Amino acid sequence: MKEKSVNALLVVAHGSRRQQSNDEVSVITDKLRASCHDDYTIVHSGFLELATPSIPDGIEQCINNGATRITVLPYFLNSGRHVVDDVPEIVDTVSKQHPDVEIVIAPHLGASPLMVDLLIDSAKSVSS
Amino acid sequence: MKEKSVNALLVVAHGSRRQQSNDEVSVITDKLRASCHDDYTIVHSGFLELATPSIPDGIEQCINNGATRITVLPYFLNSGRHVVDDVPEIVDTVSKQHPDVEIVIAPHLGASPLMVDLLIDSAKSVSS
Repeated sequence: MKEKSVNALLVVAHGSRRQQSNDEVSVITDKLRASCHDDYTIVHSGFLELATPSIPDGIEQCINNGATRITVLPYFLNSGRHVVDDVPEIVDTVSKQHPDVEIVIAPHLGASPLMVDLLIDSAKSVSS
Repeated sequence: MKEKSVNALLVVAHGSRRQQSNDEVSVITDKLRASCHDDYTIVHSGFLELATPSIPDGIEQCINNGATRITVLPYFLNSGRHVVDDVPEIVDTVSKQHPDVEIVIAPHLGASPLMVDLLIDSAKSVSS
């Protein structure tokens, strides 16, 4: 019988010199953890640069917590170099060290079919 | 009798040297235009730097199309300097030239209560 996978989410952001921006990523990660615990028992974040933990450290944290399947969520709006090249390369390198763990990368945020709904909701939040 | 306002949305993004990133903003703007025409008859975009139209030109475009109320939608994830200082300063300057037009600024995307739903939906889109 196939064992049930232990699912983790890793929110991957660019990282900023402004601590407040990094804190905002932590806040959204905490909200995510509180909202999806039925499907994803482990939720962490990792930064490409300028902040810690790094993406490899974030992945290791998920694995140390028992994850057998990790979904990397790029917290980026556009499909720039970081999304297309940097994040996949880092994930690929760490993946090779953990062949027993499945790691997949979700699309960047701007590609989400829900982005339009989010924008309209945001506009309505300031309607008179 | 108070005249009904003509509502516009202006998606405001940073702008990039990569044309593809700017094109992605145009795509989301087009999707928005197609989705919200009952509430917002005018939908344009504007860039802070590195791309055109500029934010003031985007606002002028809305006004030239007949907008009496413009909701500026910051297409930014974090509440960094651009969201906190730059965009409001630019909007304030243009506002003074058009005292008859109401211009409001919506929160940045990371502040949306729908962001968690978007992230979970994005994660599920790559679930096995």
